[in-house]
Amino acid sequence: MGALDDGHFDEELENGLVLGVCSKPEIEKTKIIEDAVKVLLLGLGEDINREGLRKTPFRVAKALREGTRGYKLKVKDIVQSALFPEAGLESGVGHAGGVGGLVLVRDLDLFSYCESCLLPFQVKCHVGYVPSGQRVVGLSKLSRVADVFAKRLQDPQRLADEVCSALQHGIMPTGVAVVLQCSHIHFPNFASAFLNSNHQGWSKTVVTSGSGVFEDEKEMIWGEFLSLLKFRGIDIDNTGSRISGDGCWCPSQNISTMEPANSEMIAAVTSIIQSLGEDPLRKELLGTPTRFVRWLMNFRNTDFKMKLNGIDRCRNNPFGSNGHVEESIQTELNLSLWSQCEHHLLPFHGVVHIGYFGAGIDAIGISLLQSIVHFHGFKLQVQERLTRQIAETASVLVGKDIMVVVECNHTCMISRGIEKFGSSTATMAVLGRFATEPAARAKFLQSIPPSNTGV
Amino acid sequence: MGALDDGHFDEELENGLVLGVCSKPEIEKTKIIEDAVKVLLLGLGEDINREGLRKTPFRVAKALREGTRGYKLKVKDIVQSALFPEAGLESGVGHAGGVGGLVLVRDLDLFSYCESCLLPFQVKCHVGYVPSGQRVVGLSKLSRVADVFAKRLQDPQRLADEVCSALQHGIMPTGVAVVLQCSHIHFPNFASAFLNSNHQGWSKTVVTSGSGVFEDEKEMIWGEFLSLLKFRGIDIDNTGSRISGDGCWCPSQNISTMEPANSEMIAAVTSIIQSLGEDPLRKELLGTPTRFVRWLMNFRNTDFKMKLNGIDRCRNNPFGSNGHVEESIQTELNLSLWSQCEHHLLPFHGVVHIGYFGAGIDAIGISLLQSIVHFHGFKLQVQERLTRQIAETASVLVGKDIMVVVECNHTCMISRGIEKFGSSTATMAVLGRFATEPAARAKFLQSIPPSNTGV
Repeated sequence: MGALDDGHFDEELENGLVLGVCSKPEIEKTKIIEDAVKVLLLGLGEDINREGLRKTPFRVAKALREGTRGYKLKVKDIVQSALFPEAGLESGVGHAGGVGGLVLVRDLDLFSYCESCLLPFQVKCHVGYVPSGQRVVGLSKLSRVADVFAKRLQDPQRLADEVCSALQHGIMPTGVAVVLQCSHIHFPNFASAFLNSNHQGWSKTVVTSGSGVFEDEKEMIWGEFLSLLKFRGIDIDNTGSRISGDGCWCPSQNISTMEPANSEMIAAVTSIIQSLGEDPLRKELLGTPTRFVRWLMNFRNTDFKMKLNGIDRCRNNPFGSNGHVEESIQTELNLSLWSQCEHHLLPFHGVVHIGYFGAGIDAIGISLLQSIVHFHGFKLQVQERLTRQIAETASVLVGKDIMVVVECNHTCMISRGIEKFGSSTATMAVLGRFATEPAARAKFLQSIPPSNTGV
Repeated sequence: MGALDDGHFDEELENGLVLGVCSKPEIEKTKIIEDAVKVLLLGLGEDINREGLRKTPFRVAKALREGTRGYKLKVKDIVQSALFPEAGLESGVGHAGGVGGLVLVRDLDLFSYCESCLLPFQVKCHVGYVPSGQRVVGLSKLSRVADVFAKRLQDPQRLADEVCSALQHGIMPTGVAVVLQCSHIHFPNFASAFLNSNHQGWSKTVVTSGSGVFEDEKEMIWGEFLSLLKFRGIDIDNTGSRISGDGCWCPSQNISTMEPANSEMIAAVTSIIQSLGEDPLRKELLGTPTRFVRWLMNFRNTDFKMKLNGIDRCRNNPFGSNGHVEESIQTELNLSLWSQCEHHLLPFHGVVHIGYFGAGIDAIGISLLQSIVHFHGFKLQVQERLTRQIAETASVLVGKDIMVVVECNHTCMISRGIEKFGSSTATMAVLGRFATEPAARAKFLQSIPPSNTGV
């Protein structure tokens, strides 16, 4: 594989393609990330040679380099090939077409990487401009330019400002406006997950940036821009309220753990940041390795097994477990689940529904079920295994006739090559009577209400 | 640029990348498509050297080759690198994990090309399988495999069957199920658009395919699969109702125009089909070039100008246009718009909202406004220019104080590299008092109700 020169690279970009791992320095940088990921896996107490993890360093390196390819892209090359002459009004007073006719593209799904904690965050991007000089830009380029800056380590406000400024310089219009709706996954940490089952799963923020006629957010033109967003059901109330200097958007900024982080793992994350083309000494990145490692350590491998032998006092009717009263199916729905994909070191999260026969369980029992979910969730996992483990462990508590449905959103489905925003994964485990009685399965499934576990 | 060998190609795919136009046969095939597109543009009466069209042949060739890259991909290479050992139940009766634990990925947004008319169609893909042999597949591979077959000239049922069969052979599970919700754009033809303003914009169909335990659609397991879809609000009523052999899903099959199609253009489309790697003599493709050309001819360039001089008898109050009664803003909302992007030869469609001062217009006037929209829409266009032209022409009818908002979905935003499903574009033109009075603009914008012009 020969090195791809810049010209080819732009050609590839134009094709909707991105740079592969080709040239020698590229291979070296990928190797550095792979080595760093091995250090992280070892720090988590994992066997880096077990089947599910063997290619994880490679996958993580690829995903990270792909997800930060924006560092290598030049806005000029994207925009210049797609500026088209377009007349303004032929006569009379007004604005239209290539002179003053507002253009707005809404609902561009992007993702970016949080510079504060290295986790991906989702972005609904709305971007518009007011053409001038009898010149418009190809619509897709607004998306491509936004992606150049999204595919870096970012903070929402800087992302909006950089997209805005790049378009202003690239198109030279009368003005550019950018509105970003950002959603950052917000995990509870291992300990607090057990204590607080109503944990809020997302940190959200809306940021805006404007140049030219959009520079002043009090201008009428902003109102018109926001009206056009409203037509699509996008109601931005807090425009103008930029994130304050404290920068509390990233949940990792608020973690007040005093636990010292493993210095080898911190050094490994620092080397990753460097090989992505960033300066680990940039002010905003100084604490990032530590924050990432602290977060990651929520998923360390533990030796102890969850023991539930002898626990069935939480059954509402202790006699039910052997009697004939227990023909009805009990359900515990929407137990929250947080986990980490072992193939990509990226979070997935969702809900668990559990069905079982017999007498219901009391509040202690429900909290035990939730603990079982967290116990198996806070590890490097795959959803299929997690579902089986929850079923097996919970069967000790609620009996051998048990059915488990797990519904999750996987960050690795959006922040890698396939970028499938909005997709979700369901898995199922059926034990005992649920395995042999289709009617029992159907009854349990009917009891689960439609939901939206998405952003 | 050196040729990319197969190994590298798979590597690139794995990276979420696609093959660029690199090797010599590739360049030649691209050249064939470019030449064919020039024939099509000439057949439409266009100047292939005008600025907006100069690079259109290149863009179309790239988009088509990119959008049909599935012909070059091998499922085996995608799946084999991502099969992971995963245990079934440790003990007891039941199914879970790598043995029998149903896995379902929902809401994968894909697009494909209709083999009957060459237009892209959108696909919501839901795919699942029941693992066996203590083996699961990486979740993203379900999406990648579906995309291998989506990125070809397709028919919904064959697409579902091919995805199903490929996964069955690739993963060797107990069974595979595929549900596709497909939406095909349904343009009126030029003439009927003027007659029927309530034209239905989409042809939709749901298809299913199953193998192994999913082979029989009466099996309970299908019910469970559909229950898991319902949790995400996806209610498939007509499962089991495969499209009949008549294959009426593609609207172009129903066009009964007797107009002979230009044989040079037909030959050009045939050469495109061939250079994508398809056999133009395949039964389903035999009429495709003719259908495509007939459809495309809706957008031919015409010399005549729309003349509305002297027409204002459709004003409800003919005296209003010079009097003082006309302070109120009148609106005509949701006029339907069909057009063709001149940069990519791909359709865009949506609605037009028109605001103006003075007395309202009667039914004839509204129908004239709708005709103005169609007159400018049925051409090779860009939305910015179209918006301006509608405003300028309509001002003859409703006066020089006019504001036009156009909201569209562009097929070129989804069926090319950026694949931005759900994005939409708004453009605006303001003339006369709307240009000088921000309050008038605001008032008109407030009168437009939120809508969803999407699929």
